Amino acid sequence: MSLSWWDAPCQSLDAIASNKASARQQQLTKPTGSLGQLEQVAIDLAGMQGRERPSVDSLWIAIFAADHGVVAEGVSAYPQAVTGQMLRNFVAGGAAISVLARQLDAALEVIDLGTAVPLEPLSNVRHLQVGAGTQNFAQGPAMTRAQALIALEAGRDSVRRALDAGAQLYIGGEMGIGNTSSASALACALLGCPARLMVGPGTGLDVAGVAHKTAVIERALALHQAHLGEPLALLQHLGGFEIAALVGAYLACAQQGLAVLVDGFICSVAALLAVRINPACRQWLLFAHRGAEPGHQAVLEALQAQPLLQLSLRLGEGSGAALAVPLLQLACRLHSDMATFAEAAVADRPA
Amino acid sequence: MSLSWWDAPCQSLDAIASNKASARQQQLTKPTGSLGQLEQVAIDLAGMQGRERPSVDSLWIAIFAADHGVVAEGVSAYPQAVTGQMLRNFVAGGAAISVLARQLDAALEVIDLGTAVPLEPLSNVRHLQVGAGTQNFAQGPAMTRAQALIALEAGRDSVRRALDAGAQLYIGGEMGIGNTSSASALACALLGCPARLMVGPGTGLDVAGVAHKTAVIERALALHQAHLGEPLALLQHLGGFEIAALVGAYLACAQQGLAVLVDGFICSVAALLAVRINPACRQWLLFAHRGAEPGHQAVLEALQAQPLLQLSLRLGEGSGAALAVPLLQLACRLHSDMATFAEAAVADRPA
Repeated sequence: MSLSWWDAPCQSLDAIASNKASARQQQLTKPTGSLGQLEQVAIDLAGMQGRERPSVDSLWIAIFAADHGVVAEGVSAYPQAVTGQMLRNFVAGGAAISVLARQLDAALEVIDLGTAVPLEPLSNVRHLQVGAGTQNFAQGPAMTRAQALIALEAGRDSVRRALDAGAQLYIGGEMGIGNTSSASALACALLGCPARLMVGPGTGLDVAGVAHKTAVIERALALHQAHLGEPLALLQHLGGFEIAALVGAYLACAQQGLAVLVDGFICSVAALLAVRINPACRQWLLFAHRGAEPGHQAVLEALQAQPLLQLSLRLGEGSGAALAVPLLQLACRLHSDMATFAEAAVADRPA
Repeated sequence: MSLSWWDAPCQSLDAIASNKASARQQQLTKPTGSLGQLEQVAIDLAGMQGRERPSVDSLWIAIFAADHGVVAEGVSAYPQAVTGQMLRNFVAGGAAISVLARQLDAALEVIDLGTAVPLEPLSNVRHLQVGAGTQNFAQGPAMTRAQALIALEAGRDSVRRALDAGAQLYIGGEMGIGNTSSASALACALLGCPARLMVGPGTGLDVAGVAHKTAVIERALALHQAHLGEPLALLQHLGGFEIAALVGAYLACAQQGLAVLVDGFICSVAALLAVRINPACRQWLLFAHRGAEPGHQAVLEALQAQPLLQLSLRLGEGSGAALAVPLLQLACRLHSDMATFAEAAVADRPA
């Protein structure tokens, strides 16, 4: 059996660089550990970038958008036409991620993997149209195997463009009415967890809506039971095109040696899938935030992830990751630019 | 009895502006509430700045440094000479807050309220020398009433300079070996809480050190029992010059109508004192982070504060507040620059 691209080895971290960075942190003019999580962020980035003093000045944000057939079950607060409308909003500059990308001086690419409502070609959107949205996974597989592989490849292609542009940090974002249903179903299967512990309001369901969504997902998990053990089959049966693209992007980043900042619940589920497919992928992932969706915490724990922010965000689009970027940048500047005890002639604590 | 300056009325928030901002948040192209805490930040700043679309581009950071006589009891992991050494480091640009101020393009002023070890005059440091550090509060009052008033006034003067420079956000920072002991004692008295529930490792005490620090603070609370009921007397008996300056600064900001971003444990204790002195001060305070010091949570709860970050920081210097500034700035940009549903022709959820 030939090796599929997603199974190919991930890059190793540079242990010499991260050890040097760790030693440097001990010498900076501050009590040991007093910069909390930001110290480890600088050390992790040093290992990824292979240098004692890393930086994250060049940012790539890719938004993957797609529709979900399961919306036919009435699991979303918004109409499906919003996916296409938001694609226009992303490139017109009015969406949250558009504003954040401008402020951060980040490259922003927008990839349409397939909307239910046909769209005219939009300038500055890459239209891949893997399908007119997924099929309803409450009735059958969300996509064909061929579609899953095309969507994975779309993520990999995005990473290639990011590297060509010299990006030092990759952020994947998602947009797709109904995609918390897909992500919740995937998380239940990956964690062996009942839907009632995982399902939340998404972008704004009420209590009755959450109960209905839970029932739809329980039904789908039973329907696809025979296919839940293998991550790629799982993705095909319960996933979304944009989730598959995120999986492919995270795997490609790890294989190419590009640091990833993972956004919220849906991106974290994609990250967990990527890690189940190729476990060494994990060490290239930084986690931006824990969002409002109740299942997010369980997914982060399974990834042993300590996110930087907890702001009750539940927007997606990569927005939580974008909001965490200044913390990464400031962590790097502190690490690089602070004086050591020796340089500043400051007394360290007695040994 | 004449009204003391700290009792003078605080500015009112502009309810029309914050109501407009709140209405605008409902119209932006995102699910209602999906930007979590950042939505309220933008609304709060709108009320403070009196305009629907606030901004925080002009920042003022004041670092107040002073020594603490209670260090004679062996309550700190670092020698007292470090206070003066760090003053040099602040203006030389090597300290954490120096790096952060440069990155944020913030004005940074450094105010020496009195070190135990005499210092040569440092350029770019304001030497006020209220005393050679406080007296040991385990033996007697930390300072005289006159010293407390001078230190309060030093904070007020800093705010005047911030306003003259056109600042839109005021950050107070602190540095002083031993000052978590002072802050812990103040918090115990303000919250009626035993020292064992409040005292933590500060910049790095071990378990035995924390136990000793707790005993010293219990003893001091008993010694000063007659003076713990009135906030200014409390400040005089258990406070530090830098803590008093922060109290004065926060009160002056509220009186002058300048938004404050409160840093960590010590600054939060100063904020609680300010609010006890003049309760309307509270509405001008935003809270940057919950730090590693165990008592911080109780102080934040007493202030009904929801901080933005929880990164296990315990550095002080205003560093946690500086790290939260980009979140405030991005919250304002999102609020100002995102398209509304109408502008972007995106469907809102059905009513």
